[in-house]
Amino acid sequence: MTVKVFGHKNPDTDTITSAIVAAIIERELGKEATAYRLGDLNKETEYALNYFNVETPELLDSVNSDDEVMLVDHNEFQQSADGIDKATIISVIDHHRVANFETNAPLYFRAEPVGCTATILNKICKENNVTVTKEMAGLMMSAIISDTLLLKSPTTTTEDEEALHELATIADVNYDHYGLEMLKAGASTKDKSTQALITGDAKTFEMGDNSVRIAQVNVVDLNELFERKEEIVDEIKKESDREKYDLFILVVTDILASDSRVIAIGENNKVIERAFDVALDDNEALLTGVVSRKKQVVPNIEKAFQSLYE
Amino acid sequence: MTVKVFGHKNPDTDTITSAIVAAIIERELGKEATAYRLGDLNKETEYALNYFNVETPELLDSVNSDDEVMLVDHNEFQQSADGIDKATIISVIDHHRVANFETNAPLYFRAEPVGCTATILNKICKENNVTVTKEMAGLMMSAIISDTLLLKSPTTTTEDEEALHELATIADVNYDHYGLEMLKAGASTKDKSTQALITGDAKTFEMGDNSVRIAQVNVVDLNELFERKEEIVDEIKKESDREKYDLFILVVTDILASDSRVIAIGENNKVIERAFDVALDDNEALLTGVVSRKKQVVPNIEKAFQSLYE
Repeated sequence: MTVKVFGHKNPDTDTITSAIVAAIIERELGKEATAYRLGDLNKETEYALNYFNVETPELLDSVNSDDEVMLVDHNEFQQSADGIDKATIISVIDHHRVANFETNAPLYFRAEPVGCTATILNKICKENNVTVTKEMAGLMMSAIISDTLLLKSPTTTTEDEEALHELATIADVNYDHYGLEMLKAGASTKDKSTQALITGDAKTFEMGDNSVRIAQVNVVDLNELFERKEEIVDEIKKESDREKYDLFILVVTDILASDSRVIAIGENNKVIERAFDVALDDNEALLTGVVSRKKQVVPNIEKAFQSLYE
Repeated sequence: MTVKVFGHKNPDTDTITSAIVAAIIERELGKEATAYRLGDLNKETEYALNYFNVETPELLDSVNSDDEVMLVDHNEFQQSADGIDKATIISVIDHHRVANFETNAPLYFRAEPVGCTATILNKICKENNVTVTKEMAGLMMSAIISDTLLLKSPTTTTEDEEALHELATIADVNYDHYGLEMLKAGASTKDKSTQALITGDAKTFEMGDNSVRIAQVNVVDLNELFERKEEIVDEIKKESDREKYDLFILVVTDILASDSRVIAIGENNKVIERAFDVALDDNEALLTGVVSRKKQVVPNIEKAFQSLYE
C-alpha cells in the first residue's frame, strides 16, 4: 500500500514541494509513497513547479481508515485532509506549533522550530544518505524562499539560511534573482477574485472558544489590494457567516517593505489592538515589521485572547 | 534561566534516566538544563541509579508560566507536571502516541516509534557529536532494558537492540546479567503496599468519553500478587471513586513468561473481552503474549471503545 503524503489545505509552496520531496525520500528509502495536494496551486507554486519542470501532484479529496498517511508542513487536523482522524498517521514532518493532533499509536513525529519544512527535509536527506537531486534542491529552495520571504521573515533561522545556500548551489540557480521572480509571480492580486484573496492561504485556529480564521496575502503593492477593500470586507462577512468564524483576519503583507496591513472582521476584533498595540481604524491597522503569521500574528493574538479571558 | 527537564508522573526507569541524560546533552550543547522527577523512584530505577552511582533528580511539584521545560518520555498533558499548559515547552523527546498536547508556538518535537526514549537520545548524541560517557551509557542501557523487558517486548525495534549493544559496550557491563538483576529488583511485590501496586506505574488515557486508568506491575511470580486480589480490587474501587475513572485496568506482567494477567474494574470492563477476545472471569483475564501497555494494551482497548460507539 502506498503512503499518501500531503501538506495542508490551501496549499502554499512549502506544503506542495515538501510533499513531493518527502515522497521521493520515502521511495529512496524503499517505501511506497505518493505525493498529493489538498487544493489548487497558487501562482507562486505554479511558477516553481514550472521552472523546475515538476508535475503537479494529484488532488486528494479525503482519506479514510484504510489509508496510511504522512503529513508535511502541518499537524492540526482542521488544516488537514477530511477524514484525517480515521487514517493511520505514520509520520509528520512540520515546523508549526503542535495542536489538535492525536494518534492511537506511536509514530514518527518531527517538528523543529525552523522557517520551513524543506529545511528539515534537507537534514533528513543527509541523515539517511539520500542524494539531493537538482530537482529536489530546486523544490526545497523554492519552499525556503517562499516561507522566509527570501530570508527576510523573522521565522528565518541560521539553518534555513545555510540550507538555502546549499540547495541553490546544487540547483545551480541564483536564488536572489529566482526568488524575487517567484515571489512576484505569487504577489499580483489583480487577476485574483476577492474570494480567492481571502481563501487562498487561510488557516483556522481554535483560540479559547473562538474559531479564528487567518488569511494571508503577499503583495508588492498594498494599494492595488486596498482599492478593493469594500468588496473584500463584504466577502469576509459572508464567509464568516457561512463557516461560523468568530473572527476573520486578513493579513496583507508587503514583501518588499516587510510590513503588513490587516483587516479584522468579527465582534471581538479589538483583540488585534491588544495583540499588537495598535488602533483599528475602519477595521484596519498597519502592523509595522510583521510578516509572519506563525511567528508573529498567531502567538500574539493567542496571548491577547488568553489575557482577555483571565 | 535553566530549562526544566522531566518525564511523566509515576516515573519509571526510562523517564528518570532520560531526563538525566537529556539534561546532560543540553548542557553539553551549551544550554542551562536541570533534570527533575515528578514522583518517587521505583525499586528498579533505584537499582539502576545506585549501580551507576548517579544522584536522584530533585522532585518537581508543578510548573508555571515562567518555566521553560523539556518533556521526555511523554507528551500527554495529564501525564505531565501540573501547570504544564502554562509553561513554555521548548522541546519534547518521546516514543509514545501524540495526544492531549498543545503549544502556542513552534517547538522541537521528536517522537519516534521505537521501544525507548533512550534509543532516540543515543541518536541525538551522535547527531550532535556529544560523547556518551560511561555513566550516560549505563543510564540509557537501563532504560532500554526496562522498556523492552530485555528486548523481549513487542515494542522492541532493531534500533533499540543496536543501541543496547552499543551502550553496554561503552558502559562495560554484561547487559543480560545486569538487566535481569535490575528487572528483578523492581519486580518483587511483597514489600509494596496495595496502594503502591495500583498507582506505581499508572497512566490515564481519555478514550471517547471515558477516563481509563491503566496501571502496570512487572512481576516474576504472578501468584505472589494474586493472593492479594481481594484487597487490590477494593483499593482500585476506592481509587476509581476518588479520581472518577470510568475504567481501571491493572496489568500484571510476568516478565519471565511474557504474559499478562489483568484485573479490570468499571461498568464498561467488558471492553477488555472485545479488545483481546477473552472472557473475563471475576473481573480477571489472562492475556497471552501481552506485555506492552503502549503497543498492545492501549491501542486494542482504544479500538474496542471506538467500535462500541460506532
